[in-house]
Amino acid sequence: MSAPLRIALAGLGTVGIGVIRLLQANRDLVTTRAGRPLEIVSVSARDRTLDRGVDLSPYAWEEDMTAMAARDDVDVVVELVGGSDGPALTLARNAIAANKHFVTANKAMIAHHGLALAHASEAHGTALKFEAAVAGGIPVVKGLREGAAANAIEQIYGILNGTANYILSTMEASGADFATTLKDAQALGYAEADPTFDIEGVDAAHKLSILAAISFGAKVDFDAVACEGISRVRAADIAQADVLGYVIRLIGWADVAEIESGAPALLQQVKPCLVPKGHPLAHVTGATNAVVAEGNFSGRLLFQGAGAGDGPTASAVVADLIDIARGEAGNPFSVPTSELIAMEPAESGERTGQTYLRFTVTDRPGVLAEITAAMRDANVSIESLIQQGRANDGGEVLVAMVTHDGPERCVDAAVALLSGSASLTAPPLVMKILEE
Amino acid sequence: MSAPLRIALAGLGTVGIGVIRLLQANRDLVTTRAGRPLEIVSVSARDRTLDRGVDLSPYAWEEDMTAMAARDDVDVVVELVGGSDGPALTLARNAIAANKHFVTANKAMIAHHGLALAHASEAHGTALKFEAAVAGGIPVVKGLREGAAANAIEQIYGILNGTANYILSTMEASGADFATTLKDAQALGYAEADPTFDIEGVDAAHKLSILAAISFGAKVDFDAVACEGISRVRAADIAQADVLGYVIRLIGWADVAEIESGAPALLQQVKPCLVPKGHPLAHVTGATNAVVAEGNFSGRLLFQGAGAGDGPTASAVVADLIDIARGEAGNPFSVPTSELIAMEPAESGERTGQTYLRFTVTDRPGVLAEITAAMRDANVSIESLIQQGRANDGGEVLVAMVTHDGPERCVDAAVALLSGSASLTAPPLVMKILEE
Repeated sequence: MSAPLRIALAGLGTVGIGVIRLLQANRDLVTTRAGRPLEIVSVSARDRTLDRGVDLSPYAWEEDMTAMAARDDVDVVVELVGGSDGPALTLARNAIAANKHFVTANKAMIAHHGLALAHASEAHGTALKFEAAVAGGIPVVKGLREGAAANAIEQIYGILNGTANYILSTMEASGADFATTLKDAQALGYAEADPTFDIEGVDAAHKLSILAAISFGAKVDFDAVACEGISRVRAADIAQADVLGYVIRLIGWADVAEIESGAPALLQQVKPCLVPKGHPLAHVTGATNAVVAEGNFSGRLLFQGAGAGDGPTASAVVADLIDIARGEAGNPFSVPTSELIAMEPAESGERTGQTYLRFTVTDRPGVLAEITAAMRDANVSIESLIQQGRANDGGEVLVAMVTHDGPERCVDAAVALLSGSASLTAPPLVMKILEE
Repeated sequence: MSAPLRIALAGLGTVGIGVIRLLQANRDLVTTRAGRPLEIVSVSARDRTLDRGVDLSPYAWEEDMTAMAARDDVDVVVELVGGSDGPALTLARNAIAANKHFVTANKAMIAHHGLALAHASEAHGTALKFEAAVAGGIPVVKGLREGAAANAIEQIYGILNGTANYILSTMEASGADFATTLKDAQALGYAEADPTFDIEGVDAAHKLSILAAISFGAKVDFDAVACEGISRVRAADIAQADVLGYVIRLIGWADVAEIESGAPALLQQVKPCLVPKGHPLAHVTGATNAVVAEGNFSGRLLFQGAGAGDGPTASAVVADLIDIARGEAGNPFSVPTSELIAMEPAESGERTGQTYLRFTVTDRPGVLAEITAAMRDANVSIESLIQQGRANDGGEVLVAMVTHDGPERCVDAAVALLSGSASLTAPPLVMKILEE
């Protein structure tokens, strides 16, 4: 048996405590699989006095977590503090500079600083691992970095936020509207008091930018993710989608296309989409996450599981530690950082496909003619159009339509033509329809 | 850039040619990800004259494939010949003895000889990899060996044979019977001329025994897999299951329970099962494979994708080669072979759950009374019982029932009580019902 892998653990929230519990509960099997013991030597958190339900006395307490990086008795620093900057980032930089391996569940930090950290860890010959930063317990970073490594990835997409998926699938089951469902989700602990990051797609965008970098060999570019949340999705949209054979999911999507210069351009978007009921993502309900990678040889690969929670996240953190203990950790983004390409952000306009549009309109004559004329003028061909029979309490009527296959820029043009129209009570909700 | 990883490729069927095509099509990205070129230096197959649609002239041809192991210019031997013994096994032994890494897609060989080969490769300090042997392009060996490595696996189960799943899901969609569907599947190339290995569960059992070894740290024990195929499943069973809220899938299942001595006992079975429509495996149709691992911290992880085919299988083979090129290949069964435990085969009798039983009976008075009396005498509690209205052409009536939760041994006892009864025209079909 080799020497233990000595761990400093920063952050003792639910995930940090989950890691401690896991290493206690599964000690023997983790040691056998890792080939050496995984031993926590030091811990740190804001409040030492808090009762966290586990005995922390075996571990040296560090008041200043960034000091953990300086400890001679530590091989790897695990950061479970959160926040894209601040103490987490300082700790990361210090740890790498002190030749420690670094493991984190911090998606915001990796989305913003992952490239710089990877570059630093490369220079120091240390491992940087962040399986837990994407889709909780699902080994999808590994699945892409290694499992699908032989493939050119054509698209990577999936359900990357459990809160948004919980809300959408609950609306689907109950018929309730967004506001009520969000409130219930908050009461049940499925949504935070400030749910913005989850429901507006920011959290999913963090994860997507990491997955896109690994999949396409691109430099992480979180700022280029086009992001739209689910707060505008109505019960009526879900009902309409159902009739048409779809469910609505918040989908993070990335692919690469060549632009005119021949250079690759990276499309990254997080948006509510219509998913055909025959597609595996249509059956993903509740707080579950699921990622689809379409490889040019593997075909469609699906990775599904719990996207959050102390147990699943701890499982991913310790999997990273086992990789490090085994000496099986390589380039965090699959290739050396020098090989990562700074890709132009792609416009989605040239993409073709079917689109769902939902208009809220005033209940008066000529509105349908105005909308359909805009579609015609923008060369959008309509496959089906459904107008709700009666105006709702606000005097609004909902008009939903599905286009034939066509370029997204035509749909954008049609929407632009209708912009400012007195007939529309709000901008239309436009959702891409995934292919089965 | 480091020196190339030099490959000898034995077997030039669809998968072997798939590997060549992949390494041509994705050459640059594979080189970048692997950190070095993956270079085929030598190939071998039975017939040199066959036109395989790819140019083999760059590669040295070996008439005797087992001689590949002796080549000084080879680092890794890839075996895509098949067969649990014979030339494939000789090649494996020779390659490992000659200090070559060894990669194979041969599930039968790994199920029968994987332990001995792992032991040999350990002694020689070489890698033994077989991702492609289980579930084609799905990186599930890696998912268990590494992704879920922090977990005690509670159960591992899934759809491990594409042909059987194609037949069952086609029967489900069409309402056709087994024989017709099999014939169509053969005509379409989804089933082989001799489909025995696929439809009787042997192929799935090979894969299950490999997954079980990795999941539970057990010595591979293919002979202990209880195996039952799908040929007795009727259209009426599928229709009945549908009414009750289930689909029928051929499920490979493994878990570990303690026996009286306190030692772990390994349950391995491949059997048609009822899967609740809300379970992710219920939506797996066609030739797709899907594996569920339930970890004590990760919760339920699902890996899904193409279980066969030249592209997906080549994807898995080359992923193994990339691992080797990166120096990230470890113990093939996750732990050193000396740590693998020879587990007793477990009886399923003590497992509790719901069971579906379908009887074919003669159409005469008293039959239901006989069946229900046997259930009562064996302490099987019936949740629902459905008797088909009319006898079919053969004068048979179908009686289907679902039990309440209870030990499987009680169901076995009830079936034993009815054994030899003149009322039954055939032994009942007994299927476990998976929990949602």
